[in-house]
Amino acid sequence: MKLSIVISTQPAKFDALAYKGQLAENIIKIRRLGYDGVELAVRDPEQIDLPTVKMLTVGRGFPVSAIGTGQAFGEEGLSFSDPDEKIRREAIDRIKAQIALAEQLEALVIIGLIRGIVQPGIETRQANGWILDALSECASENPSVSLVIEPCNRYEANTVNTVNDGIELIDKLGMSNVGLLLDTFHMNIEEPDMLQSIENAGDRIFHFHIADSNRWYPGAGHIDFPAVVEQLKRIGYDGFLSAEIIPMPDPDTAAAKNISFMRGLVG
Amino acid sequence: MKLSIVISTQPAKFDALAYKGQLAENIIKIRRLGYDGVELAVRDPEQIDLPTVKMLTVGRGFPVSAIGTGQAFGEEGLSFSDPDEKIRREAIDRIKAQIALAEQLEALVIIGLIRGIVQPGIETRQANGWILDALSECASENPSVSLVIEPCNRYEANTVNTVNDGIELIDKLGMSNVGLLLDTFHMNIEEPDMLQSIENAGDRIFHFHIADSNRWYPGAGHIDFPAVVEQLKRIGYDGFLSAEIIPMPDPDTAAAKNISFMRGLVG
Repeated sequence: MKLSIVISTQPAKFDALAYKGQLAENIIKIRRLGYDGVELAVRDPEQIDLPTVKMLTVGRGFPVSAIGTGQAFGEEGLSFSDPDEKIRREAIDRIKAQIALAEQLEALVIIGLIRGIVQPGIETRQANGWILDALSECASENPSVSLVIEPCNRYEANTVNTVNDGIELIDKLGMSNVGLLLDTFHMNIEEPDMLQSIENAGDRIFHFHIADSNRWYPGAGHIDFPAVVEQLKRIGYDGFLSAEIIPMPDPDTAAAKNISFMRGLVG
Repeated sequence: MKLSIVISTQPAKFDALAYKGQLAENIIKIRRLGYDGVELAVRDPEQIDLPTVKMLTVGRGFPVSAIGTGQAFGEEGLSFSDPDEKIRREAIDRIKAQIALAEQLEALVIIGLIRGIVQPGIETRQANGWILDALSECASENPSVSLVIEPCNRYEANTVNTVNDGIELIDKLGMSNVGLLLDTFHMNIEEPDMLQSIENAGDRIFHFHIADSNRWYPGAGHIDFPAVVEQLKRIGYDGFLSAEIIPMPDPDTAAAKNISFMRGLVG
């Protein structure tokens, strides 16, 4: 397994990001800390200086593990489950742009908060239909780019809260380039038994987020990371463990603590 | 230690309540299940039929463990930290009415969500000052009624999220009728080590909420309740363990599962 950490490509409101701004400097810094790659949180691919990002990452043999897309919901309100068809279309087009970016960076595209919040008065079945349609269209866009559905805890989303919800969605969709992204922080709230949920998800797991129970760096809370890593090894997961953590007590310390603790577990 | 469960005295939006409506029937039902008492969620004491409630509870030797007050925030927007002085005054007056009710029912009064959400543009220091003033005024109202501050997780509140925040507030206030209410669901998210936090809070713990990590009945998630009960015994806690749980798979099953599991632990 490889280790990466989320950095934002532009300032963001959402605070569970280890770094904000100063992209080049930050990529160099986390590489020096010993990370195997970087996960990029991108609001809008149009605002990315692609040649520079490519040169700093894949161009130097430093992979981009995934592209996070939630800022387009958090900051612009774009979502797959908005009752306004125009907004749903914008969300789908934005994800298609992320897919084009992901192809250049050889990365996965995360489908998390972009699913949106099912609004009062909208039937869940209707919203789930919109989400399924959007996913299906996006996944067909480029079969060489994988999409990963992230189950998010009840406070952040009202669709796909549990790993089981995610498994059902993946299986319903039945497309080989769509998998799951499990996140230990969300699982601590939603899963009765995180290790069992990892086993249930099995080879549908394409990407994995780590954060401790309080969303600080692993080791700062009570999640049993040795057992999580052991279980991931057991099911044959060999992708990234990507830290999506609150930058506390400060971003540099959080990034250093994470790599030091996790390197001891994954080798 | 004694076991109680939250029931709402009127229909409520907030769903972490084991029962809604049908008050008398529900009190009788949970008594038959073997509970030692009941916790009442009350939006407005004026809407309570006090003689009936008293007759069904303390009048028959069935204690009211505590009175929950959060519905006044959730449904009416009353809070200690609202920038509008008039709303703060209404919140304080509402809690004073709850204190009068609590005196009749020999119960504690919970100060949880009624603290409110510090609004954008309001300084935390200012909001904390308002909360401290409100608490001080309420606690002075009737020294024979105890108030309990409930640390609530980051998604539900932005003041007093951790047990340590609660300890600091209690110690700053320095009034003997103000203590803490710890809740296992919130602690699973906020506390790096729940057992250590219980020890730190010590005799400031006046009341205790149980719910598993997914807010279902204890046993449905991954919280180590045997260790929690053991730790509470060790620090000499002999109050109620009150179930504030999601009524899933249905209210009766949740109430029965909780008492059966917890009775095995507390004796």
